[in-house]
Amino acid sequence: MKYSFSEIIEKKKHKIELTSEEIKWLINSYVNNQVTDYQMSAFAMAIYFNGMTKAETLALTQSYVESGYVYDVSNVKGLKADKHSTGGVGDKTSLVYSPLVASYGVKVCKLSGRGLGVTGGTIDKLESCKGWTSELTKEEFIDTINKVGMSITGQSNDIVPADKKMYALRDVTGTVDSIPLIAASIMSKKLVIDSDSLILDVKVGAGAFMKDISVAEQLANEMIQIGHGYKRKVSILLTDMQKPLGKAIGNAIEVKEAWDTLNNNGPDDLKEVVCTAAGLTLTDLGIFDNLQEAIKDCYKKLETKECAHYLKQFIEAQHGDFSLIENYNNNFTTKHKIEIKANSNGFITIQDAEIIGLLSMELGAGRKTKEDEIDFAAGIYLNKKIGDTVKIGDTVMTLYTNYNINEEWINKAQSSYTISNNLNKIENIIKIIR
Amino acid sequence: MKYSFSEIIEKKKHKIELTSEEIKWLINSYVNNQVTDYQMSAFAMAIYFNGMTKAETLALTQSYVESGYVYDVSNVKGLKADKHSTGGVGDKTSLVYSPLVASYGVKVCKLSGRGLGVTGGTIDKLESCKGWTSELTKEEFIDTINKVGMSITGQSNDIVPADKKMYALRDVTGTVDSIPLIAASIMSKKLVIDSDSLILDVKVGAGAFMKDISVAEQLANEMIQIGHGYKRKVSILLTDMQKPLGKAIGNAIEVKEAWDTLNNNGPDDLKEVVCTAAGLTLTDLGIFDNLQEAIKDCYKKLETKECAHYLKQFIEAQHGDFSLIENYNNNFTTKHKIEIKANSNGFITIQDAEIIGLLSMELGAGRKTKEDEIDFAAGIYLNKKIGDTVKIGDTVMTLYTNYNINEEWINKAQSSYTISNNLNKIENIIKIIR
Repeated sequence: MKYSFSEIIEKKKHKIELTSEEIKWLINSYVNNQVTDYQMSAFAMAIYFNGMTKAETLALTQSYVESGYVYDVSNVKGLKADKHSTGGVGDKTSLVYSPLVASYGVKVCKLSGRGLGVTGGTIDKLESCKGWTSELTKEEFIDTINKVGMSITGQSNDIVPADKKMYALRDVTGTVDSIPLIAASIMSKKLVIDSDSLILDVKVGAGAFMKDISVAEQLANEMIQIGHGYKRKVSILLTDMQKPLGKAIGNAIEVKEAWDTLNNNGPDDLKEVVCTAAGLTLTDLGIFDNLQEAIKDCYKKLETKECAHYLKQFIEAQHGDFSLIENYNNNFTTKHKIEIKANSNGFITIQDAEIIGLLSMELGAGRKTKEDEIDFAAGIYLNKKIGDTVKIGDTVMTLYTNYNINEEWINKAQSSYTISNNLNKIENIIKIIR
Repeated sequence: MKYSFSEIIEKKKHKIELTSEEIKWLINSYVNNQVTDYQMSAFAMAIYFNGMTKAETLALTQSYVESGYVYDVSNVKGLKADKHSTGGVGDKTSLVYSPLVASYGVKVCKLSGRGLGVTGGTIDKLESCKGWTSELTKEEFIDTINKVGMSITGQSNDIVPADKKMYALRDVTGTVDSIPLIAASIMSKKLVIDSDSLILDVKVGAGAFMKDISVAEQLANEMIQIGHGYKRKVSILLTDMQKPLGKAIGNAIEVKEAWDTLNNNGPDDLKEVVCTAAGLTLTDLGIFDNLQEAIKDCYKKLETKECAHYLKQFIEAQHGDFSLIENYNNNFTTKHKIEIKANSNGFITIQDAEIIGLLSMELGAGRKTKEDEIDFAAGIYLNKKIGDTVKIGDTVMTLYTNYNINEEWINKAQSSYTISNNLNKIENIIKIIR
């Protein structure tokens, strides 16, 4: 054995920089069960306290990437783009961004995950189109990209197995909230595909994992550093997740909102996040020189509706029945539909993403445990958004569920928003970091 | 479940004081395998970084004590004393201290361990008297104390099982060197016997676990605090372990030196540590009012040789053949005896306990792994001690071994001491903390 766990943990405890070889030995030994879970959790906790240097974080990321399958995308024709979100309530950005970017001739190559938490992940949402599957072979993934211009596939078990094992351990040992560990985890999953541009949408606020802007910025900078280590163009968006994104929260209802947005009928905040992310991609790829012009062009493209068909084709290429979404109202009915009415006049000034997210989970739209099944039709529609004026009796939000009605839901829904006479500036994009 | 691991680890990460109930729940759940090794090692690492408050350390100690058997010593007649050493090279203090204190009518009730490291523990040393056993029933232990005035028994598996499990985990996860964890571990093993006086001999220096005086003082203070929590009289000696204690290092050779010391033929440093520890016991118990007088009386008692028979009786009461020690030279011969000679004239100014300890292990006196067997006859005798004058060709030390001679041993032995013309003050007792 070239290195020993005890030497490595002592160095980390005393904040002595580990070499790239030591980190790779450690992660490799962990994957091979030569370093135990209890040793690795002690190491992760030491990182929680002492952090990692840039070089250490890069080596950790590399060891994750190298632990599994790395895609060969040399057969993809044209420029390749990828976009990732750290996750939030009502976040269907990818479902609009990908067709929009594809309409510029860029190939969107995306790995995605399932959701554990308030709402489903992108894959769960897409599965509301019956038959749609993320389980493509590597060849089918490349073929779909070349044929349709975009594809979303699942993270099969042979992708970054080291990160999978580490994440499962961190989840139960209080070692999730460490910036270098988060950065390495996110980036490793993106770096298995050699895209020409990578956009990371870091959500900040009550409804996101990151509650604090300064911590989100640290994470953003760590991820950009890792990108540099891989000579990869990375742009980061810090976007607001105090409030939900868009009006639809759930699964099928979010695919529907994405489709509506591609047909020039989307909510403003969603359009802003989508067009900014797409604009970043298009300038990173050199298709536009100026970011503002690129963003403007994306808005225009949405108005023309000419990118909508990419979403439909992509879903159908992966065996999904898109007619379910096109004929949404007939296909996703629920037993109960609860309208929440305003008790006063004014502006909606607060819509708490965390409360709304947890409520949508209780209605059936999310998973509490890995084993839970998602009800595609369950969810919430925000009839009013922050900044909208409301009058007593107006419907502020609508809850959809197939479960028996729980009176607590009404209280939670009422507590999720505030009506007031003073309206502050509404901010969707907090910061761009490149 | 009343508490959750994730809440407890978050509190510890953020340095929020845990309640006594939370700590006891955690340790109890760990013993019952409801909290896993990988969770506990993350917790231990968080303690390494964030420490524990006095109340937390006390609760941890209590949870250890309460995890197993607690001795009923109500049948022991008279005052009860206990003494513990954190361990060092040549440390046979207990084997002189216990008969000495017993000669004052005090009952010495002592649990002891085996050694893993440079030399054997007290139990290993005593096993060089063939037949001697530490495996007494609880009743035999009490009976021996009442009959002889002293007994030393092993830590059976039902004593502080929580600490045993924790220690095994800490040993392989880089979480040994945490003052509150060390303090709780040591004290829990002492608190299972309700003695009227407890002396802790904390060794400091190259040959000890604690290399640094200020850290040793922190440990001493933590242990005194725990003692207070149990309303137990605790006195602490910080003693030097830069150099070995006494002249004999090994197993049978150390029992022999203890016996010689009880027969008014012991090395000065050993006598000083023994008499100071015994003096502390006697004043803590109220047998003497003044520490200096108590220590003086202990020196006198050693001169009278009238406490020697306690050691012999105790060893025989626990089925050991003491004649082996009485007739040492015939019974503990080794294949090889290597005399290390001085190359210059002057004083011995350095004798490095760490080098000498490791060398004695290589000669067969200690265990590298739990499975190793100890050679009772192997060891080292320091013909010269720090402060002694030497001339070229004088024997400085003698190595005893049954293994084939390794040339490296000679180099190591030569590098273990320094001869110089300038002699600094020799300090055996660094500090007394009560």
